Amino acid sequence: MTTPPRRPASAPVNPPPRLLMGPGPVNADPRVLRAMSAPLVGQYDPVMTGYMDETSQLYREVLRTSNEATVLVDGTSRAGIEAALVSLLSPGDRVLVPVLGRFGHLLREIAERCGAQVHTIETAWGTVFEPEQVEAAVRRVRPHVVALVQGDTSTTMNQPLEALGEIAHAHGALLYADVTASLGGNTFAMDDWGVDVASAGLQKCLGGPSGSAPVSLSPAAVAVLDARRHVEHGIRDEHDEDHGVRIASNYLDLAMILDYWGPRRLNHHTEATSMLYAARECARLLVDEGMDAAVERHRLHGAAMLAGVQALGLRVFGDLAHRMNNVVAVEIPDGVDGDGVRAAMLEDYGIEIGTSFGPLHGRVWRIGTMGHNARRDAVLTTLAALEQVLRSAGAAPVAGSGVGAAREVYA
Amino acid sequence: MTTPPRRPASAPVNPPPRLLMGPGPVNADPRVLRAMSAPLVGQYDPVMTGYMDETSQLYREVLRTSNEATVLVDGTSRAGIEAALVSLLSPGDRVLVPVLGRFGHLLREIAERCGAQVHTIETAWGTVFEPEQVEAAVRRVRPHVVALVQGDTSTTMNQPLEALGEIAHAHGALLYADVTASLGGNTFAMDDWGVDVASAGLQKCLGGPSGSAPVSLSPAAVAVLDARRHVEHGIRDEHDEDHGVRIASNYLDLAMILDYWGPRRLNHHTEATSMLYAARECARLLVDEGMDAAVERHRLHGAAMLAGVQALGLRVFGDLAHRMNNVVAVEIPDGVDGDGVRAAMLEDYGIEIGTSFGPLHGRVWRIGTMGHNARRDAVLTTLAALEQVLRSAGAAPVAGSGVGAAREVYA
Repeated sequence: MTTPPRRPASAPVNPPPRLLMGPGPVNADPRVLRAMSAPLVGQYDPVMTGYMDETSQLYREVLRTSNEATVLVDGTSRAGIEAALVSLLSPGDRVLVPVLGRFGHLLREIAERCGAQVHTIETAWGTVFEPEQVEAAVRRVRPHVVALVQGDTSTTMNQPLEALGEIAHAHGALLYADVTASLGGNTFAMDDWGVDVASAGLQKCLGGPSGSAPVSLSPAAVAVLDARRHVEHGIRDEHDEDHGVRIASNYLDLAMILDYWGPRRLNHHTEATSMLYAARECARLLVDEGMDAAVERHRLHGAAMLAGVQALGLRVFGDLAHRMNNVVAVEIPDGVDGDGVRAAMLEDYGIEIGTSFGPLHGRVWRIGTMGHNARRDAVLTTLAALEQVLRSAGAAPVAGSGVGAAREVYA
Repeated sequence: MTTPPRRPASAPVNPPPRLLMGPGPVNADPRVLRAMSAPLVGQYDPVMTGYMDETSQLYREVLRTSNEATVLVDGTSRAGIEAALVSLLSPGDRVLVPVLGRFGHLLREIAERCGAQVHTIETAWGTVFEPEQVEAAVRRVRPHVVALVQGDTSTTMNQPLEALGEIAHAHGALLYADVTASLGGNTFAMDDWGVDVASAGLQKCLGGPSGSAPVSLSPAAVAVLDARRHVEHGIRDEHDEDHGVRIASNYLDLAMILDYWGPRRLNHHTEATSMLYAARECARLLVDEGMDAAVERHRLHGAAMLAGVQALGLRVFGDLAHRMNNVVAVEIPDGVDGDGVRAAMLEDYGIEIGTSFGPLHGRVWRIGTMGHNARRDAVLTTLAALEQVLRSAGAAPVAGSGVGAAREVYA
């Protein structure tokens, strides 16, 4: 960290207008930003605990679950992942991580830091697992937890989860799904699919800012936490017995977070009130729209973007039958400066599209249509700008009108 | 968690007006709330990384440090504490925690979860440690880290830190201070005092919402992290060697967070942009006011509140020579229903004052004058309401005019 000292900033933030059409974060819905500017109330004010209860109920609707244990973790989506894994996994526990892409590696890495015995299976980037592949690994590994990502933006794939809960449960394992990038834009049915723990974030299809992680746990998952419950001596008034291996984190200890959100309201952290307002508004807007309607909106605008880039003569990476609705990986044509195109999009049009990681680094752009930006004008504007930038670059095979093809999808 | 299912909330949040005069969280400055409603920009947008650099520099000014390693942890102040401890302490490391009150116990508890060998010394609630007491314990324990709270709102005490850096360093230890409740309202001079790691939050004297934790590390502390640096395989492009004991958390791994905030900008979490806007504005307003002026403002309004409650015939808990400027513990008179008074303050006047924990539970109210609420009208309004509530309760020894005594302080 060698940047020279700077003069302190002398004015409030005044960000330029940006249309964020990458893999997330995306523009927050203005209604969510307005909710964040509401005045604060005290931590145990009945108004505040009422908002907490409402937020739990709203996320039950969003996740399609009846889990009482549905709360926010005060951190980004990564905090939600770590809270789930550090709370579920005792050192030495076996965990199976089917890895679709970059975020599967993140689950592996976090589980390793929890001291778990981590077993992975991998599928080629741009593909998903068949249930039989997961089942064979479950039989071999006999994991305590199967942990995977539903939608991995690094590859744009949407892993079918429908069959995995039954497979995990038949072998005595719990199923954890990171639904950060998929929730709200792709069908997710927590209870019907037997997902025991799910964690998310606001900055993708939920249309909010990063910084709050909705987490829900099935009664079976809560039972694992209960067996590890540990009292903070001198901190809390309750004097439960210690049993099980203590959860290695205090901040991300979901047993304590459930006690704070539950009727006992035991003190833990000071709830991040403004982020709770944001999380509540994100869910409220989705529930008001209807979860099926929200998924259909993402499907429609994602299909329009796909048709548009294909009409520009661009190829799309990955198994299109299993693509997430909300992001597409567009192959960078030979001879085109991928970073130069992204810079021109940002500088000339204020539009951000995404770069990529790992094996796809330098090979694809990732273009998102999610949350507040899953809308017609955002899609058509992005396609129009991309067409102009590719023409200026002179090297791109601009085959036809991207805007025209997208408009046909809307017709 | 047995609350019955509720109907999803049908309207945006609309919190009632509250004057939050407890030990924090307090009302956020409206300018901070407005900053949070600014539009988002992308994670690696030059505008965003510019805001990150500005925020680092502003917190250097607030903490009075030249530490390059000055960043935000995306979570509440507790996340900042845990990030500091889990990143500094390897399992088996000895840590000395001088415990002033409840939050000292929290440091102990978090350090235990990090697998450290935790040694505590305790002082009676309402008192602080003499440097000689800390030095004797350092000689005995030979800790890797001395960890303590500067201002502990549970007792209202402000622990002098001036001498402790030299003591720690003379014995090869690093000094960590949790300055969440004190920073901005009480003098803190990180470099002059030899504090190696400090962490804070926004919801006290900084006048913001909970949810972002400024953290700064001295070069000596960064060296400890560097020795524990661990690459996320498949997640990051760099391939450093592993050495030292891996940090047990990914989310709170300060080595990785420094790499994200530093010029390498290695991907970690998705920065909580709206909370960063808030944190930047909190610091900007303080730096604009001047740190000495901000401390003097808290001293003045704290003195007025103290004079006011004493004029009401109420006794104040603890060693007043070492009281924090921004919170006072007021003893609940015999025969007065402490919770009833708090409820009347909230219901009749919209004013929240604080309850208390541990040995002080049911014995004191905690009244804060901090951040945006360290101002004359907030102090006088609170005293006027408290006087009325105590009169209505009929059981309180209302000796004189609290408002009058406070006005004399302002005269």
